[in-house]
Amino acid sequence: MTRLALLTSGLEVISHLFQISPTKCKSTRWFSRGRIASSKILEEVEKLKALKLELGDESGSTGKLILKTPKGTRDYQPEQMAIRESVLNKVIKVFKKHGGVTIDTPVFELKDVLTGKYGEDSKLIYDLKDQGGEILSLRYDLTVPFARYVAMNKTSTIKRYQVAKVYRRDNPSMSRGRYREFYQCDFDVAGQFDPMIPDAECIKIVQDILTSMDIGNFVIKVNHRQILDGIFEVCGVAKDMFRTICSSVDKLDKSPWEEVKREMIEEKNLDPVAADAIGEFVRMNGGMELVDKLESTSLSESSTAKNGLDSMRLLLKYCALMGCPQSVSFDLSLARGLDYYTGVIFEAVLMAEVRDEKGELIQVGSVAGGGRYDKLVGMFDSKNRDVPCVGVSIGIERLFSIMEANLANTKVRTSETEVYVATAQKNLCEERLKLCRELWDSDVKTEHSYKKNPKLLSQLQECEISGIPLAVVIGESELQKGVVKLRTVATREETEVLRSSLVHSIKEKLNELKASQ
Amino acid sequence: MTRLALLTSGLEVISHLFQISPTKCKSTRWFSRGRIASSKILEEVEKLKALKLELGDESGSTGKLILKTPKGTRDYQPEQMAIRESVLNKVIKVFKKHGGVTIDTPVFELKDVLTGKYGEDSKLIYDLKDQGGEILSLRYDLTVPFARYVAMNKTSTIKRYQVAKVYRRDNPSMSRGRYREFYQCDFDVAGQFDPMIPDAECIKIVQDILTSMDIGNFVIKVNHRQILDGIFEVCGVAKDMFRTICSSVDKLDKSPWEEVKREMIEEKNLDPVAADAIGEFVRMNGGMELVDKLESTSLSESSTAKNGLDSMRLLLKYCALMGCPQSVSFDLSLARGLDYYTGVIFEAVLMAEVRDEKGELIQVGSVAGGGRYDKLVGMFDSKNRDVPCVGVSIGIERLFSIMEANLANTKVRTSETEVYVATAQKNLCEERLKLCRELWDSDVKTEHSYKKNPKLLSQLQECEISGIPLAVVIGESELQKGVVKLRTVATREETEVLRSSLVHSIKEKLNELKASQ
Repeated sequence: MTRLALLTSGLEVISHLFQISPTKCKSTRWFSRGRIASSKILEEVEKLKALKLELGDESGSTGKLILKTPKGTRDYQPEQMAIRESVLNKVIKVFKKHGGVTIDTPVFELKDVLTGKYGEDSKLIYDLKDQGGEILSLRYDLTVPFARYVAMNKTSTIKRYQVAKVYRRDNPSMSRGRYREFYQCDFDVAGQFDPMIPDAECIKIVQDILTSMDIGNFVIKVNHRQILDGIFEVCGVAKDMFRTICSSVDKLDKSPWEEVKREMIEEKNLDPVAADAIGEFVRMNGGMELVDKLESTSLSESSTAKNGLDSMRLLLKYCALMGCPQSVSFDLSLARGLDYYTGVIFEAVLMAEVRDEKGELIQVGSVAGGGRYDKLVGMFDSKNRDVPCVGVSIGIERLFSIMEANLANTKVRTSETEVYVATAQKNLCEERLKLCRELWDSDVKTEHSYKKNPKLLSQLQECEISGIPLAVVIGESELQKGVVKLRTVATREETEVLRSSLVHSIKEKLNELKASQ
Repeated sequence: MTRLALLTSGLEVISHLFQISPTKCKSTRWFSRGRIASSKILEEVEKLKALKLELGDESGSTGKLILKTPKGTRDYQPEQMAIRESVLNKVIKVFKKHGGVTIDTPVFELKDVLTGKYGEDSKLIYDLKDQGGEILSLRYDLTVPFARYVAMNKTSTIKRYQVAKVYRRDNPSMSRGRYREFYQCDFDVAGQFDPMIPDAECIKIVQDILTSMDIGNFVIKVNHRQILDGIFEVCGVAKDMFRTICSSVDKLDKSPWEEVKREMIEEKNLDPVAADAIGEFVRMNGGMELVDKLESTSLSESSTAKNGLDSMRLLLKYCALMGCPQSVSFDLSLARGLDYYTGVIFEAVLMAEVRDEKGELIQVGSVAGGGRYDKLVGMFDSKNRDVPCVGVSIGIERLFSIMEANLANTKVRTSETEVYVATAQKNLCEERLKLCRELWDSDVKTEHSYKKNPKLLSQLQECEISGIPLAVVIGESELQKGVVKLRTVATREETEVLRSSLVHSIKEKLNELKASQ
């Protein structure tokens, strides 16, 4: 058995075990309902498929087109889209509740717009081919295009949200819900305002969104770039080392302190004494009492840190007033990698552990992040006019993954069809079309068979499979009497209703069904 | 005066005349309301800006970043987004009414997926730079990715809609609402069904959408590739010339017959006698009577044409049953350029002429198009397994332009904020935040000033400018009495309401306002 054959058979075994096809959805019906296979299993299948493709190439290309989406991307199936729509609607509802307006920017920007904004991550930017024209790149996030927009339109104040895809040539772990193409949902406030008021509202927005998702406990870690800079200052880090040491601290969410410390000392040549001093600070977290405590340490000797601590005090006070005291944690280990942050930074981390259908824990991690960036707009303005900004980005792909896992054993409707128009005998296609027309024109969501003379049984089965609540059955004898049968699909109960008042009867029945849910 | 200075002053004159800033939106307030400047004027400004940029380059680059979106693209402002959202919602509502499910595919595909699908237009495809990995291109339409999806997932039947951006390196006339990045809204039915039933429903969908837009009269032209092939056959065109002659016929919507004929004869070496014979046919249009008439001409000698005419008879019958007889026109000049169509083709053309604010006519043209493509999925299947498909693409960008022009003198709200929480004196910021929290937690869409001690007048002005219906005013004496003022912004009427039942009072007042609209 060749390696390829072995893998192919492995794929089939997995598919059989989990009742999914090797290509995920081998549906022979409309995609109206279905099981969401756990993302974990799908990932395993994806890995095997990738391996199979590689081996296929190895064993001699056939010249046949490889059928796949580009590396790190995926199609969304109708079931996934239905979940995604409901998650997105919850997020957008909160953005609108806080007065957000929305804009849209192109998927690509002049390459120069993105240059120098992402530090070490710039290598992950997708470039377009030079086809004789401008040099373009796909957007890497929504923040830099937003800053470009604010500068270009000379906007002084805007509170905007944007939901759009961004692109990163990463080598993401797709099993953890990370892709090269993924959605971001951003809310940003631009404008000159009083300290910490919009910043606190961004944190309230994160809290509102995560609460509306009902996905368990979370913590919103907050910190301030000036506090971090102050720490580096009092610990004796040279000023030109701040940024690189900061990016080491940023790794504390994934690596233990000992490893981060080793990187600081061995790779970045930091004095071990300084590293140890930093280590003391970055392992602290708490609430208002931590601000008090830090003010009585050496940190208060740095005026930068002092400013940061004053800001933190105000931020925590506003957060408490807006009702998120439990979920906010002042955490000195939070650093965030991006170059453009200048003030408050924050990150929401899911604490609840979600179990998949095999009872295994799905670790989730960060689901939102953001901060203040007061200098980014100025980088685009010909007179370096700054417009202070603060914003948050929701890690919507992770939220999708969690919802998918939560709904793994639930049937998800993918269409909103209310009525299926069926025919009981042959040669009723024309009557069916006339009736469909009447329902469509009355705004009733209606489907029917695309066969001329379909079997009644298969039409009724279609309703049950798709979860369509009502069926209208047209029959010859009923036609002569001026009636049709109205069938409640779930109960299979049928009543005769007047053809002339059918729309009314349907709307009544739909309301009745909705009320009884 | 230099050319650059001249242009700059020209831009300012235009801006002044039309009360728009040279960069479209120099708003100093939230983008909550505003005039939609006519797209015509904006386009002129865009052209001047482009010229200015070029001259700026000419007169010596300063090394400063050019602030623009890539050629052929644009940002959508909040007012435009509000209009776009309402147009899209209408389209999606119709798609859902007909039982559509939705999917999503990546913005880029393996380049091979797109190769050989678009004929002469392939040169317009955007390629990504080879950064060491797969060779990728941006999608050119939603049809080819959909066919790839159907083949890859071994889907037998699906009725799906998709709303997404596509990319074409064209030199579009932006003044006519054409861009290099633009939205498409597609509805396609894949599966083996009986003739013309899904095809007719696609036409019904176009009719439903255009009717719901309320943008005047339109005609849905229909034709059939087999009828066109039959015409070429009986007129003596060599088989290998069918496609190129078809693409000449396709130009009839923009060029007069004489010009198309000249192209056929001079550029494509067609016998003038054949060209004249084609000319007789392609100038015909009508309804069922035209099918009858054609069956008694030489056309009936072609079995291909005969099949096409039979299909057309059935299609017209079904369209009539579904209630769109007036708007459907069997038009022999309709050819449609894309390679992949195999059966019915159709295109909706707006007949009503919309006037812009200067009273000039805005010509609109094609707003939807589609057809049957039975061989495209097979091109992706390793066993060439075909899945017949028919679908329609809505030219949503044109619909946006029309709506923008129609709303040019109307104020468009861009946020949904219901209540603005204002403070009457200093030092009430904390009370304000507490009250906002309460409203947010009760799902009331609420905004407040991001200044600590804003002036009452400026807060109330903000409500009026943004069209926020209600304001809550917190004052010291009221606080002591346990009340707040609830102000109806439009009438400036104020009543005292109990702080403890504020949410209830607000919801009551909002319902009252909604009912009186």
